[in-house]
Amino acid sequence: MTTDFVDVQTAAQRLRGAENVLILCHKNPDGDTVGCAGALCLALRSLGKTAAVLCNDHIPRLYDYMALPWYDGAFTPGFVVAVDVAGTQLFGDRNGIAAYAEQVRLCIDHHASNSGFAYETLVDATAAAACEIMTRVIEAMGVALTPAIAGCLYTGLATDTGGFRFSTTTAETHRVAAHLMDCGANVAWLNQRLFETRSRARMQIELAALQSLQYFLDGRCAVVALTWDQIEPTGVAAAELEDLTSLPRSIEGVKVGLTLRQQKDGSFKISVRTDEDVDACAIARRLGGGGHARAAGCELSGNLDYTRQALLTEVEKELKKLDAKPAE
Amino acid sequence: MTTDFVDVQTAAQRLRGAENVLILCHKNPDGDTVGCAGALCLALRSLGKTAAVLCNDHIPRLYDYMALPWYDGAFTPGFVVAVDVAGTQLFGDRNGIAAYAEQVRLCIDHHASNSGFAYETLVDATAAAACEIMTRVIEAMGVALTPAIAGCLYTGLATDTGGFRFSTTTAETHRVAAHLMDCGANVAWLNQRLFETRSRARMQIELAALQSLQYFLDGRCAVVALTWDQIEPTGVAAAELEDLTSLPRSIEGVKVGLTLRQQKDGSFKISVRTDEDVDACAIARRLGGGGHARAAGCELSGNLDYTRQALLTEVEKELKKLDAKPAE
Repeated sequence: MTTDFVDVQTAAQRLRGAENVLILCHKNPDGDTVGCAGALCLALRSLGKTAAVLCNDHIPRLYDYMALPWYDGAFTPGFVVAVDVAGTQLFGDRNGIAAYAEQVRLCIDHHASNSGFAYETLVDATAAAACEIMTRVIEAMGVALTPAIAGCLYTGLATDTGGFRFSTTTAETHRVAAHLMDCGANVAWLNQRLFETRSRARMQIELAALQSLQYFLDGRCAVVALTWDQIEPTGVAAAELEDLTSLPRSIEGVKVGLTLRQQKDGSFKISVRTDEDVDACAIARRLGGGGHARAAGCELSGNLDYTRQALLTEVEKELKKLDAKPAE
Repeated sequence: MTTDFVDVQTAAQRLRGAENVLILCHKNPDGDTVGCAGALCLALRSLGKTAAVLCNDHIPRLYDYMALPWYDGAFTPGFVVAVDVAGTQLFGDRNGIAAYAEQVRLCIDHHASNSGFAYETLVDATAAAACEIMTRVIEAMGVALTPAIAGCLYTGLATDTGGFRFSTTTAETHRVAAHLMDCGANVAWLNQRLFETRSRARMQIELAALQSLQYFLDGRCAVVALTWDQIEPTGVAAAELEDLTSLPRSIEGVKVGLTLRQQKDGSFKISVRTDEDVDACAIARRLGGGGHARAAGCELSGNLDYTRQALLTEVEKELKKLDAKPAE
């Protein structure tokens, strides 16, 4: 099956013609997939349509304010739309979502890697968030952006760009944010909720991370190491633990930040984060992993000292390449 | 002396007519005053004029990329302009800056409290940053925004709004950010530098802060306490220490966050940060301090246990008011 790539107008037309709409999010839902679903649901309902949302996982409580109507089987879906979903493997297999994976009429997404699994696909890989595209779609549907709709869309924009900080942020992202504020999105409240609220578990694990912090290779490599015994009792959410991986690299003078998280089976999940001069992927690849130039990862078995040493050996090799480069 | 309030066009006209321009920043310079100075300096120089910057304090190394030309007396100022300075008391008395405090021809500022100390004042209290106003002034001067100028202006915008998070952020702030990106501001690089870089000293003091973290009053009050013995050896910068005051309030369920920082003389400087339902100023005022509704402070002498207990007694009173409110 090959998908038909459609434009904003066509996508809006399809949604205007749809009835009993089922909206699918990707698993481990983030602010962008949830924000798209929330905004689209409100837009469809404002047109008098029935719509509800389904996801492999619970919607995090953080997004409670969207009051997403969960699909409970009360209607037979007449039109299935996926939001911010790059491929069917991202649906998961819980809550009966897999049954709809092959029936997606329309997918609205911003991933260049979108597999084209839907009948029709609206994809714009230059968009920093799927909510950037959804803003255009809802307006093309002829629906005015209420403060509630704008709030959902702002959520996706702000979370997928780390608060307009990531390099994916474009001038257009800021223009859409301005427009959503004009439409009444309560961004002061949203920002406090999205960025200034941390769980007690997060504080505990952050303490353990800072206690474990060590510097190597003339301060150019910083290492955070967390054992399963430290992680498990806090009950910290996966996303909060993931957040910590940016900590060691953020320290002044550090070119390579390593975060070692022990799994239940004793092995270590390793995150490699690097400054722009150093290839994170090269480090991870030589240890059986992979990833991107600035963010990569691998898994290693063995005790902590052995694991750390194996990593430092590879980090040192990359840093030596840096030293060998002629000064600009 | 009363100032003449002028508009953007008039301010731009004055600067176009000026020669040998001395630009004054406020003391303890932040990204907004420095960004304004850097952008204006580049704009004036692009018109073939001589311009340099003076400040009570060193410009933090964080802003080195602006390469601000420091005023070393090489020319006699023909026109003095102050940027992001609300009153003469904010100039300080070091580096000879006080000599120019009464000679300011033009002040460009975004504080509603601006005292009108300059001959002419361009003030817009709706602007989230003085750099928002400076963007308009430089364009009205007929100077095209180069990537370097746009980078300086973005710095002020991003830092004064905590990365577009504070409630001062408006749709216009985002529109200006979009425009600065269109002009070539390297915001991915700037954001990493401004927001993702922390000193080793900061990590040390953050560790001490988390170690000291305690919860009181059913988890609705969180307290961080740092002794002088902990603060002093780290050599942490005042701004980084100040940043920590937002930590206890940011924890889930916490309505009142208290940060106690011991001074050299043994007394405690206390920061009170509250959720929207609780009056921080009421708590601080009853202990001889003051401030705003969400952020206030006071100073107390006495040992740590006594100080904490005195605070908790006042916090409890405010929380009881909250409990007494009828549910909405």
